[in-house]
Amino acid sequence: MHPKLGAVHHIGIAVRNLEEAKKIFAGSLALPCVDEKTLSERGVKVAFLSAGNTTIELLEGIGPESAVSKFVEQRGPGIHHLCFEVDGIERVMKELTESGVRLIDEKPRPGAEGRLVAFVHPKSTLGVLVELIEK
Amino acid sequence: MHPKLGAVHHIGIAVRNLEEAKKIFAGSLALPCVDEKTLSERGVKVAFLSAGNTTIELLEGIGPESAVSKFVEQRGPGIHHLCFEVDGIERVMKELTESGVRLIDEKPRPGAEGRLVAFVHPKSTLGVLVELIEK
Repeated sequence: MHPKLGAVHHIGIAVRNLEEAKKIFAGSLALPCVDEKTLSERGVKVAFLSAGNTTIELLEGIGPESAVSKFVEQRGPGIHHLCFEVDGIERVMKELTESGVRLIDEKPRPGAEGRLVAFVHPKSTLGVLVELIEK
Repeated sequence: MHPKLGAVHHIGIAVRNLEEAKKIFAGSLALPCVDEKTLSERGVKVAFLSAGNTTIELLEGIGPESAVSKFVEQRGPGIHHLCFEVDGIERVMKELTESGVRLIDEKPRPGAEGRLVAFVHPKSTLGVLVELIEK
């Protein structure tokens, strides 16, 4: 069997303020900022920083109803999710469901880059929010 | 200036029970387990899972005084830290301190693989516990 989960595509970090977060991660820690986007439909402003082998995704929620805003409100800023590449997202989602893993998304949907994504429920993965992205 | 922080060497996930965590991450999610260790001096049992481009480090605290046990007790299991490779850890630590970033370790110390490591204080990095490891 080949691995269901492949490379870590990105690591999502929830922040209160994207500009302040960029000063720390792109400034002091000197991870180069390679892109920045507002994803209104997902309720987030995002900055992508390159760590070479993977990407750090800084996420600021837009408005109090955003899932990222709620996360920061409840737990403070911090690491929010891990996104893994998968080969055949619908097949992997089916296999995960069959092995008892609960998914948030019933069907994959287009993510920030237009590639299909889906989230696994953190109750199934020991509190870790796992995102899948089509390779 | 070259980046202070390089590739993500591993992602640490704090768990209550290593065997249960391996069933989920190495079993259901099928990330291959490549090594396992008990690091008594750090108060942890560790399993290393390969994600291809980086490693997932599952950490179970040994005894209630372990930092990992305290993390799980306070916040529940979840993503615990990110470890970045650096080129010249002492120089990087000096530069970080000069740019106002607070460190937990004043001096680098040998980590799980024998390479030098040091931790950055999460108060300086928006709640993200950052580990540095000599490249």
